[in-house]
Amino acid sequence: MDCETRRRAEGGIEDVQSLGDERRLAIESVGISGLRHPIEVRDRDTVQSTIATVRLAVELPAERRGTHMSRFIGLLMEQRDPLSATVLPTFMAGMAARLEAHGGEARFDFPWFVEKHAPVSELASFLDYDVSLSARLAGGECTVATEVAVPVTSLCPCSKKISRYGAHNQRSRIRVQVENAEEFALGELIALIEAQASAPLYGMLKREDEKFLTERAYDNPKFAEDTVRDVALACKRDGRFGTFRIEAENFESIHNHSAFALITGRCDRQGAA
Amino acid sequence: MDCETRRRAEGGIEDVQSLGDERRLAIESVGISGLRHPIEVRDRDTVQSTIATVRLAVELPAERRGTHMSRFIGLLMEQRDPLSATVLPTFMAGMAARLEAHGGEARFDFPWFVEKHAPVSELASFLDYDVSLSARLAGGECTVATEVAVPVTSLCPCSKKISRYGAHNQRSRIRVQVENAEEFALGELIALIEAQASAPLYGMLKREDEKFLTERAYDNPKFAEDTVRDVALACKRDGRFGTFRIEAENFESIHNHSAFALITGRCDRQGAA
Amino acid sequence: MDCETRRRAEGGIEDVQSLGDERRLAIESVGISGLRHPIEVRDRDTVQSTIATVRLAVELPAERRGTHMSRFIGLLMEQRDPLSATVLPTFMAGMAARLEAHGGEARFDFPWFVEKHAPVSELASFLDYDVSLSARLAGGECTVATEVAVPVTSLCPCSKKISRYGAHNQRSRIRVQVENAEEFALGELIALIEAQASAPLYGMLKREDEKFLTERAYDNPKFAEDTVRDVALACKRDGRFGTFRIEAENFESIHNHSAFALITGRCDRQGAA
Amino acid sequence: MDCETRRRAEGGIEDVQSLGDERRLAIESVGISGLRHPIEVRDRDTVQSTIATVRLAVELPAERRGTHMSRFIGLLMEQRDPLSATVLPTFMAGMAARLEAHGGEARFDFPWFVEKHAPVSELASFLDYDVSLSARLAGGECTVATEVAVPVTSLCPCSKKISRYGAHNQRSRIRVQVENAEEFALGELIALIEAQASAPLYGMLKREDEKFLTERAYDNPKFAEDTVRDVALACKRDGRFGTFRIEAENFESIHNHSAFALITGRCDRQGAA
Repeated sequence: MDCETRRRAEGGIEDVQSLGDERRLAIESVGISGLRHPIEVRDRDTVQSTIATVRLAVELPAERRGTHMSRFIGLLMEQRDPLSATVLPTFMAGMAARLEAHGGEARFDFPWFVEKHAPVSELASFLDYDVSLSARLAGGECTVATEVAVPVTSLCPCSKKISRYGAHNQRSRIRVQVENAEEFALGELIALIEAQASAPLYGMLKREDEKFLTERAYDNPKFAEDTVRDVALACKRDGRFGTFRIEAENFESIHNHSAFALITGRCDRQGAA
Repeated sequence: MDCETRRRAEGGIEDVQSLGDERRLAIESVGISGLRHPIEVRDRDTVQSTIATVRLAVELPAERRGTHMSRFIGLLMEQRDPLSATVLPTFMAGMAARLEAHGGEARFDFPWFVEKHAPVSELASFLDYDVSLSARLAGGECTVATEVAVPVTSLCPCSKKISRYGAHNQRSRIRVQVENAEEFALGELIALIEAQASAPLYGMLKREDEKFLTERAYDNPKFAEDTVRDVALACKRDGRFGTFRIEAENFESIHNHSAFALITGRCDRQGAA
Repeated sequence: MDCETRRRAEGGIEDVQSLGDERRLAIESVGISGLRHPIEVRDRDTVQSTIATVRLAVELPAERRGTHMSRFIGLLMEQRDPLSATVLPTFMAGMAARLEAHGGEARFDFPWFVEKHAPVSELASFLDYDVSLSARLAGGECTVATEVAVPVTSLCPCSKKISRYGAHNQRSRIRVQVENAEEFALGELIALIEAQASAPLYGMLKREDEKFLTERAYDNPKFAEDTVRDVALACKRDGRFGTFRIEAENFESIHNHSAFALITGRCDRQGAA
Repeated sequence: MDCETRRRAEGGIEDVQSLGDERRLAIESVGISGLRHPIEVRDRDTVQSTIATVRLAVELPAERRGTHMSRFIGLLMEQRDPLSATVLPTFMAGMAARLEAHGGEARFDFPWFVEKHAPVSELASFLDYDVSLSARLAGGECTVATEVAVPVTSLCPCSKKISRYGAHNQRSRIRVQVENAEEFALGELIALIEAQASAPLYGMLKREDEKFLTERAYDNPKFAEDTVRDVALACKRDGRFGTFRIEAENFESIHNHSAFALITGRCDRQGAA
């Protein structure tokens, strides 16, 4: 809406943000961050209510002094459809129109819960994963990315090999970000990642489950280097994940720092990594 | 259930935790922490779905080597009723029974959203508050506490008084914990706190609202000391809040550190502070 | 200094904080928090430069409206002697005098580095520990507390017992706070704590060290319950640590949450726990 | 050193990391993160002791299974010269040689203290800034970056304009990262940034200083958009800062979220932004 309408709409109070700007510098990104907001996320046929930390921003042309921050909140308050990688392009188009901008970025970080069944007792409990849905609109193109952070067990191959018994292991976090992926369920990517770890985690385990997972981890020792390579190969085999960025961080149980490995690539059907 | 039953229930695997202990030291608190779990919270007639960080623990007698951590998760998975200060005593009794303990503690920290209407435009948006519900069971007595952290604006009386124009102000956080309170709605305590601040916060504001709040804050300068005293007086006037602990932290806009004030007291009908 | 002097000292600008207050509510604690400040800490014969997060506060009588926050910073800027449990009472007396208060609290949280030698290769590297020095002055009495957080390895006795091979282990943090202790070196308390863990941590390990520690952890399985009891017994045997509070938190490698245990007690020469 | 020497050096224990790898995937970055380490940083003629959080990593060729994490720590333990943008290329070359790698990355995040004098009283106190020194070695080229995070006061031009009195203001953080810059002192970049803010921050202020800064902020209202543009122009005028990335985040005092703006560019002598 033009300034006049806005002035009327807001009771004759001057609109400082809409003033011109002499500095001749366009701004790449201007908006809000650190906003907590309840959202719904659609994953295939299911919808989950969760709480996101939101970052929304638009490009600002050189001749405009400022953007209208309140419109980002208005956009969120009016959002009816559950969010998903599929609806983000529509969300971005609406944001650009609402903010009178040609480009922008959005990022929603939220916990995502999966009800898992313990490997032997099959008892059900939730496990929490940090998931991010993000998008960038630039030059008419909208790029959507999904990131999942999967906590797992990693067991050190070197420690196992050189020790008479035992092997140090620890909690690790595997972050996988995929861009321009074909449609997939969050649970599918999470399961793919967990299958490559020394062992997956569960909220609730009985002793028979603990025995199973202890032995599974000992049978599947992995360095952070192994983990990212194996997850990369699994992504390539699956083929739906576009370009990917995989980082494994081991919260070493013998050190007070982490060991990490990072690999990027793309799914084969889009060409070699 | 006794060890034998447990051994059968868990497929003949030895139950190390149930072994005796020779160290003759009782443990005050043993359990789980840092667990993220989706919960429902009842506030008067409304129920809100949110995500809690949970800490659950029990006392462990000197003669028992360990507790059974998985039961805490089982308890949460089976919890059907929305949580509230009112149901916590029942939850605690169930936890003590399930863990074969005489006492214990529980704490649920979660974000709580209130839909607020801007002071002039009356536009609706959410504001997020950190809320904690906690309880301690000891000697057959269950003490329940509710804590709310309310973000507000604080404006410095000294800065206003000594400056020819303007006054430094900033975001502040007022934490109020009440113990043994009579029943109240979270929104009532939040509103009571916000009424004592230089100005309340909102997710979305139009210019006429920003004008209103800027002037309101300037008209209500408060030191952290003023804030905690005024909130304490408001709690005493209300009378339902049992014993209270009030802390105001100002994220000073002229410093890179905070100024804070802390006061404790009790509502008059329970005697002078 | 009295208001008149202060008014002169500050160029005739009114001193709002020194005004009277009608609310008849004394404030337990008012001051600054979240201040990062470079400090020196003395430990026996050594002095280490580190960076503290500081919280300083005083009591405020009912008839005073506010305190003078800038004096806390002045106090820190003028502090010449390295801090230690021994000098804190003098620091507190100076703070009370400077702020015209009868009581107050101080807390310095800082990383502390110890150069450790790997168990077999004896290679030297640093390990970082979070240490807190705190004090409370009330009714003429000054109580000093020291807290150390020691990262260690914990290996699960249940997992070891029930599994054919391996045992889940993870990084854990053991926090020990001692109050009214006799003089001791930080390194002594840290070593006492590490001796009770499944295994200690190091910054740098060669393979022969990793083998040694993997086997040591497997030979010393401990639940969080075992850890706090064993540290408590070690404190009692030592006898210098006054009253203690010991908490062990295991960042479980098979879960995405922690298991913890907490015990409090006092050293025998002050009577049974 | 080759595997044979290593095997001897480490007592005949097999070196699992040095084994070959069949997965034919090179790893971009493998190393350590989250390591706290005491460091010295040189800034022009001064050297300051501080505590860094360190991330060090190297590229791993497809045919190598793993890297040797302990060497990163060895490198830090042996580092004698204070760190600075000037010495980082030497550090990187040494790291690549030590880890038998062609490329790698290093990042040191640390607090940096500047003794500032209050604007009127001229009293001295420290202000803390988060600084990062980082470098990337790739294809024989070493790129060095310096980032400073400067806390300041921002005062809202809209709030000032539309309100009869007062204006909301808050603490803000301006992050500036410069790459391929000519030599400069941290204090120079910090001063350049603070000069563009509504007002700078200080650790200790007397009332005459508070008056001065309150009025200065009111006289210099800036949106986040204004701040990043003005800092960008100042960097261009200075000319030494190579390519820059400037982000201003305002911790809004009327909201519970932030407003931010981000701009990138390069100094004129290297061509228009």
